[in-house]
Amino acid sequence: MIIVMAPNSTQADLDNVISKVKSQGLDVHLSQGTSRTIVGVIGDKAAIGQLEMQHLSGVEKTVRITEKYKLVSREFKRNNTVINVGGVEIGGSKPIVMAGPCAVESMEQLMESATAVAKAGAQFLRGGAFKPRTSPYDFQGLAEQGLKMLREAADANGLKVVTEVVDQRSIETVASYADVLQIGARNMQNFQLLKEVGRAGKPVMLKRGLCATIKEWLNAAEYIMSEGCDDVIFCERGIRTYETYTRNTLDLSAVAAIKELSHLPIVVDPSHGTGRRSMVRPMAIAAIAAGADGLIIEVHPHPEVALSDGEQSLTPADFEEVMADIKRVASLLRGED
Amino acid sequence: MIIVMAPNSTQADLDNVISKVKSQGLDVHLSQGTSRTIVGVIGDKAAIGQLEMQHLSGVEKTVRITEKYKLVSREFKRNNTVINVGGVEIGGSKPIVMAGPCAVESMEQLMESATAVAKAGAQFLRGGAFKPRTSPYDFQGLAEQGLKMLREAADANGLKVVTEVVDQRSIETVASYADVLQIGARNMQNFQLLKEVGRAGKPVMLKRGLCATIKEWLNAAEYIMSEGCDDVIFCERGIRTYETYTRNTLDLSAVAAIKELSHLPIVVDPSHGTGRRSMVRPMAIAAIAAGADGLIIEVHPHPEVALSDGEQSLTPADFEEVMADIKRVASLLRGED
Amino acid sequence: MIIVMAPNSTQADLDNVISKVKSQGLDVHLSQGTSRTIVGVIGDKAAIGQLEMQHLSGVEKTVRITEKYKLVSREFKRNNTVINVGGVEIGGSKPIVMAGPCAVESMEQLMESATAVAKAGAQFLRGGAFKPRTSPYDFQGLAEQGLKMLREAADANGLKVVTEVVDQRSIETVASYADVLQIGARNMQNFQLLKEVGRAGKPVMLKRGLCATIKEWLNAAEYIMSEGCDDVIFCERGIRTYETYTRNTLDLSAVAAIKELSHLPIVVDPSHGTGRRSMVRPMAIAAIAAGADGLIIEVHPHPEVALSDGEQSLTPADFEEVMADIKRVASLLRGED
Amino acid sequence: MIIVMAPNSTQADLDNVISKVKSQGLDVHLSQGTSRTIVGVIGDKAAIGQLEMQHLSGVEKTVRITEKYKLVSREFKRNNTVINVGGVEIGGSKPIVMAGPCAVESMEQLMESATAVAKAGAQFLRGGAFKPRTSPYDFQGLAEQGLKMLREAADANGLKVVTEVVDQRSIETVASYADVLQIGARNMQNFQLLKEVGRAGKPVMLKRGLCATIKEWLNAAEYIMSEGCDDVIFCERGIRTYETYTRNTLDLSAVAAIKELSHLPIVVDPSHGTGRRSMVRPMAIAAIAAGADGLIIEVHPHPEVALSDGEQSLTPADFEEVMADIKRVASLLRGED
Repeated sequence: MIIVMAPNSTQADLDNVISKVKSQGLDVHLSQGTSRTIVGVIGDKAAIGQLEMQHLSGVEKTVRITEKYKLVSREFKRNNTVINVGGVEIGGSKPIVMAGPCAVESMEQLMESATAVAKAGAQFLRGGAFKPRTSPYDFQGLAEQGLKMLREAADANGLKVVTEVVDQRSIETVASYADVLQIGARNMQNFQLLKEVGRAGKPVMLKRGLCATIKEWLNAAEYIMSEGCDDVIFCERGIRTYETYTRNTLDLSAVAAIKELSHLPIVVDPSHGTGRRSMVRPMAIAAIAAGADGLIIEVHPHPEVALSDGEQSLTPADFEEVMADIKRVASLLRGED
Repeated sequence: MIIVMAPNSTQADLDNVISKVKSQGLDVHLSQGTSRTIVGVIGDKAAIGQLEMQHLSGVEKTVRITEKYKLVSREFKRNNTVINVGGVEIGGSKPIVMAGPCAVESMEQLMESATAVAKAGAQFLRGGAFKPRTSPYDFQGLAEQGLKMLREAADANGLKVVTEVVDQRSIETVASYADVLQIGARNMQNFQLLKEVGRAGKPVMLKRGLCATIKEWLNAAEYIMSEGCDDVIFCERGIRTYETYTRNTLDLSAVAAIKELSHLPIVVDPSHGTGRRSMVRPMAIAAIAAGADGLIIEVHPHPEVALSDGEQSLTPADFEEVMADIKRVASLLRGED
Repeated sequence: MIIVMAPNSTQADLDNVISKVKSQGLDVHLSQGTSRTIVGVIGDKAAIGQLEMQHLSGVEKTVRITEKYKLVSREFKRNNTVINVGGVEIGGSKPIVMAGPCAVESMEQLMESATAVAKAGAQFLRGGAFKPRTSPYDFQGLAEQGLKMLREAADANGLKVVTEVVDQRSIETVASYADVLQIGARNMQNFQLLKEVGRAGKPVMLKRGLCATIKEWLNAAEYIMSEGCDDVIFCERGIRTYETYTRNTLDLSAVAAIKELSHLPIVVDPSHGTGRRSMVRPMAIAAIAAGADGLIIEVHPHPEVALSDGEQSLTPADFEEVMADIKRVASLLRGED
Repeated sequence: MIIVMAPNSTQADLDNVISKVKSQGLDVHLSQGTSRTIVGVIGDKAAIGQLEMQHLSGVEKTVRITEKYKLVSREFKRNNTVINVGGVEIGGSKPIVMAGPCAVESMEQLMESATAVAKAGAQFLRGGAFKPRTSPYDFQGLAEQGLKMLREAADANGLKVVTEVVDQRSIETVASYADVLQIGARNMQNFQLLKEVGRAGKPVMLKRGLCATIKEWLNAAEYIMSEGCDDVIFCERGIRTYETYTRNTLDLSAVAAIKELSHLPIVVDPSHGTGRRSMVRPMAIAAIAAGADGLIIEVHPHPEVALSDGEQSLTPADFEEVMADIKRVASLLRGED
C-alpha cells in the first residue's frame, strides 16, 4: 500500500500514520517529493490487506498495490485450471456448451430441449428450477420437481446438469440433482450463499453481477474457493450500462481480463448478454474468438410459448447453426479437430 | 400492453398474436398506422402482467403500460404511510435520523457512539453486526454478540435499533434484537431473503441496489409487502456510475421519484452515498430539502481507528452540527418547530 | 507520479524506467517492498505531468499524485471567485437564478417569459437561439434573430442574457448579444471551441458533459482559463446512468466536489437534470441546500406548445413558488435577507 | 407515436391531445383499456417525428414507434453500402485494417510505422495530426505538418490516410491530405462539425461517443448523410461504464446492432476500446468474428517512447501476428481466401 499525504498535512499527521503502520507489525519507506510525502508500506501481504489508512488525518489518498484475492489469482497458480465434470472438461482445449431453456416448464418441453441440444453437440443441459424474478407475480419456477426433470432429461441424453441455486436453504437439494451449481448475477455478492455453496462439494459457476467490476467478481470467487471449492467457473453475462437497445452490454473484454488475472475458466452467456435472438449467434462466435472456454445459450423448442425470456431463446434449428460455427472457429484458433 | 408489429410482418403473424392474447382471456384493439400495425391488449391487469409477446414472429416491440407492483404504489394507497416504531414515526411530519458506526466493534465504541448520537437528537442507533464485505478476508462483524451490544447501547440511550440482515438463517436472531431490519444494497434482489424478511413481523428498511432502477426497487419492496409486511422504508444510498471521485453517485431525485410512485417513506444515506466525510453534511441537508423522511449517517467516536468505512464517518462533534442544520431546514420547509 | 513495477519485472526494466525519468530532468526515489518495487518520481510538476510511463516494459501501473489542471484549482486560488456580470454577482453570498424557455421561439413567447421570470426575481434570461438537437430534423433554433430577441426581452426587464454557443463560427455573434456564453454538455470536450470561447472576453458557463468525470470537467475549464478567461461558471445538469425514470441523474454531490477542488462558482440545472416538471422544485431546493451558487431553470409561458423540452418546463406560476422556496432556504442557510 | 393517457386524466385532457394532433394534419386512433386510454397517431412520418406531446396535461407517457433517422437506416436501403476509397473497399467481403501510431510525432516514426503496417497487410495509415486531449497541457499534435507527413508516408507505402478533424476551421485542410475524415468520440454530437464534414466530399468515419446510444449514433450519422455524404463508416471504440480495469468497455454487440439497423459499414477500435496492449489481439479477432467490416489498431514502432497512448499500442511484430489471425478468421467465416 502507498499512502499519499495531503499537501497541508503536518509532521504530527505523518508520525501518526507511521505509528499506526508499525503497530500492525509492518514497516514504512518514506519518499519526499516536491509537493507530497509518500509513505510506502512494507511487510506481510495479508497484514497490509487489513490496513485501513484513508481516514487518518492528513492522508490524501491510499493506493493498494496488491489485491485482496489470492486463491483465484494467476499469481497463486500459473497454469489454467481444468475442471472435470464427470468426464467433461471445462477450461481444457475444447470449448464446452451449456444449453437449454431459461426455465423448466414441463417434462415434455425439457426432454425435447435436451434431445435437441445433445444432438447439436452440447455437453450440458441448463434450465432454471428456481427462478429469481424482478416481480413476485412472475413465474418462480417448478422447484424440486423441476430439478428431477432436469436430471432425467439430462441422463436420457448423456448430458450434465447446470442449474441455479437461489438461497441457502435449497443448496443441498439442488446439489443432489445438479452437476454444476450456478450462482446468478443478482446473488454475486450474496456472501453467505457464496460461502455455503463453496462447501457443497460441487463445481460452481459464478455469474458476473449486473454492475460488478472484474475485481469484485474475483473477490466473490475467492469467497467460494476460501471454503474449499477449487472448481469455480466464471460466467460473463453482460453488464448494466446506459444502452437500452440490448438488454445488457456483453463485455467480451472480461474474457481476456479473467484470463490475465486468474487461472479459472470462463464461459459467456450471449443470450442474457444481449437479450436478442438475432445477436446470439454473432456474440457466441465472438466469445469463442476472444478466448472463452465455453458458452451458455438459451434454447427452447418453442420460444413463442416460453414462460420467460422467449425473446432471447434460439430454436433448435438456430442452435445447430451456431454450434457448427463455434466448432469451426474453435478448431481454427486452437488447432482442434 | 401495446404490441407493435414489424413493418414486414404478415397477416399470419398478426393472427397469431391476436390468438395468443385471446387465449389468455384478454381482448385486443387494433390500430392501423401508415407504417405499423399496433395491437392494444385490453382486460385484467394481472393477466396482462403475465403476458410475454416480445418473442412472437412479426412483433417489433411491446410496451408495458402498467407496472407489475401494486401494494407499494401510490395508485393503490393515496396517503403517505407513517410507520410507528415503538413511538417513533417514520414518514410523519418530522424527519428521523439513524446514526452510529458502520460496524459494531466493541461495547465501549458502541456505547460512546450511542450516547453521542442520542444527545445530538438521533432516534435510531445503526451499526452492523453482520457485515457484507467484498473480500472474505475483511472484518465480517461480531454476529450475535454485536446484536446484544446494539440492544444494550440503544436501550441505555432511549434509541431504537436498525441493523442489517445478511441471510435467511439469521433473520429470527436479528429480529429478536432489532426494531427495524435492514436489507443491504447487495441483497436488494436476493428474493428469498426479501420474502422471509417480509414474514418476520418487523419493519424493513430496503436499501437501493448498486445499479437498481427505481422500478426494480419498487418491485423488491413489493416482494416484502406481498408476504404481509406493511412497513417498508426505502433507503437511497447512491448508485454506481462511471464517476470515481465519490464512492457512489447519490441520486436525490430518487426521493422525489419514490414520493410520486409510492406511499412508503424514504430515507437517505449520505455516508455511503458519497464515501467522503466532507460531503456528508451538504448532502444530508440537501436530502431533507428534497423531501426525504430521514437520514442514516455513520458516526464513529474515533473514525481514525474504525474497522470499516472510517473515511466516511463523522465525529460526534461533526454530527451535532449536521443535526442542527437538518432541524433548521426541516423546520423551515415543513413548518415544524 | 508513482510507478509500480510488476512482480516479474527485471533489473533491466527498472534501469530503463529510471533512465527515462532522469532523461526528463526528474529524479527517482526507490522503495523495495516484499513483492513489488515502487518508483517515486520527484521534480517539477509540469514535467511530471508530461511523463508517460505506463507502457514501459515491467511497469504494472502508474499512479498520478497531482492533477494536470492548475488555474481552476483551489490549491492555486484559495478564495471563492465571484464573477460580476454587469452588477450581478455569481458566486457571492446570494444564489442567482437563470430562467426562461429552452428555445427562443418568438418575440411574444420570449417577452412573456422574461417578464414573468424577472417579476419572480430571476437575474438572467436563458433561451437557446442555436439548438444542438439529436436529430437533424428537429428544430435547430432561430439563430441571430433569436439572439436579438433575447437581448431585447432581457433589456426590457432588467435581466442579463445567458445563451449557448454551438460552434466556433458564431462565437463573435453570440458574444455581441449575450452576457454569459454557455457551452453545452455535448461540447464540453470540444476543445477548439473551449479555446476560442476563452478568448471571447465574456464569462463562460460550462455545462458538465453527459458522462464527464469531475476531473475531466475541471480540465475542460482549464482549457478556457488557459486562454485568458478568469470567469468560468460550472453547471451541473445531470449525468447519464442506467436509470430511465429520469432523463439524467442529477449529481448534487458534484456541487460539494467542485467547492472542494475549485474556487469557481457552480450552478445547477434541475430541468435537464431530471427531465420532469414535478421534480424541478424539490431538486432546485436541494441544490441550494447543497451549496450551489445558483440555478438555471426552464420556464415557458405555455409549456404545452413548447417546441422543445416542454415536459420539463415550469409555468410562470410554478416558477414563482420555486423562487419563494429558494429564497427561504438560501436565507436560512447563508444568513441572507 | 402512441400516447398513453394517465389514469386520472380528464375528457378535456383527451380532447386537447386529439386537437393538437389534428392541428398538425395527423389523425388519431383511440383505444380504451381497463385502466388507460391509448391514443395512436396516424399520418405522415416526418410530421409525427416533429410531434411533442409528453408535456400535455393528462399525458402519462409517449412511445415513438418510428425513429427520426432515415437515410442511414436499413429500411431506407436494404443492401450493404460498400465504400470505395481509391480502390479499397470498406464494407465489402474482406475486412480492412487501419493502423499506425496514435499521434504523428515525426517523419521517421511515421515512415517506420507505415512501412511496417503496409508490410503486414493494412490498407490504411492512421495517425493524429490534431489531437483532442483532456488537458490543455498535453501534446496537441503537429497540425498541418503532421498531415503532410501522413500523406507522404502513406503514398510511399501504397496506403490510404484516415485522420481526425477536430474543428470546423481545419476541415478543408485535412480533406486536402486525407482519404477518410475521422470524427472523434468527443465530437460525435458536435452537430456543426458533422454538418460541415458532410459537405467536404470525403468519406467520414464516425466514432461512437463515450456514452452515446446506438440510436444517437445513427442520428449523428444522419446529420452527415443529410448534407450529401453517402459514405459514412461507423467506428465502435468502447463506451464508458463503471469498470476501471479497461479504459473503456468495448461493445461488440454494437456491430450486430448496426448491421441490423443500418446499411453502412462498421469498424472496431480494440486499442482505445480496451486501453491495454494485451487485450488488442483477442478483441480484434472477436470483432471480426462478430461481423465487423474492419479494424483500426494503434501500432507504434517504439511504444515505450510514444507521446500518447503507448500502453495500448502494438509493436510491428505484435501487429503482424494479429493480422495473421484476422485473415484466418475472416477467411473461415466469409469464405474468402
